[in-house]
Amino acid sequence: MPESSPLLDAVTFDDDGLVPAIVQDAETDRVLMMAHMTAETLRETLDTGRMVYWSRSRQERWVKGASSGHTQAVEEMRLDCDGDTLLFKVHQEGGACHKGYQSCFYRREENGTLVITEEKVFDPDEVYGG
Amino acid sequence: MPESSPLLDAVTFDDDGLVPAIVQDAETDRVLMMAHMTAETLRETLDTGRMVYWSRSRQERWVKGASSGHTQAVEEMRLDCDGDTLLFKVHQEGGACHKGYQSCFYRREENGTLVITEEKVFDPDEVYGG
Repeated sequence: MPESSPLLDAVTFDDDGLVPAIVQDAETDRVLMMAHMTAETLRETLDTGRMVYWSRSRQERWVKGASSGHTQAVEEMRLDCDGDTLLFKVHQEGGACHKGYQSCFYRREENGTLVITEEKVFDPDEVYGG
Repeated sequence: MPESSPLLDAVTFDDDGLVPAIVQDAETDRVLMMAHMTAETLRETLDTGRMVYWSRSRQERWVKGASSGHTQAVEEMRLDCDGDTLLFKVHQEGGACHKGYQSCFYRREENGTLVITEEKVFDPDEVYGG
């Protein structure tokens, strides 16, 4: 994809050059995670069909699954009405969450506290080298 | 809900005191929109069972559906692993998008451009007074 395109022009990046990307499982429609992209990692994501983010904490490009093998293959991308939020449907290998869960949203609010609603699908110590 | 609670303490608000809230339709699991909440509007949302946001553009509290009637009743709330993103399932009255669509994500990427994939479910000129 070239530097500019009708799609990229329609995306509004914030003051840090980032746009949030919501990630939904293409098979189950479960929301797996949210992360951020730069124009460059968005372009790379669309070009390669693999989710590539910008890590705000590490301030570096982040190919999802590079260390864990838990890659995300893009099925579709949508843009919201204001152009400032992306929504992807992906085919997720393994679990999306670095804590070992299928989804980062593994905790549900119940009476003002948080309850873990599911089992881990992988052992993060094993996958990330503990 | 009191000023502090195990739930509120687990949420990380950004430098502007905001946290993004992803909103999913409780019946269809479709992602409808993303908006932001302050600690106060989050507390109000959980207390009342109706989605209340903080409008960044207007810099004011925003009860979803106050002008359109398109309210959102909370079914459940989840928090992500990092504590910096909320996920709500809601029962949506009418459409979530101020442009008249069921979801704000009514445009899909196709070959580097954006294609509208659906019909409006209401006329925004009629609902918002045009």
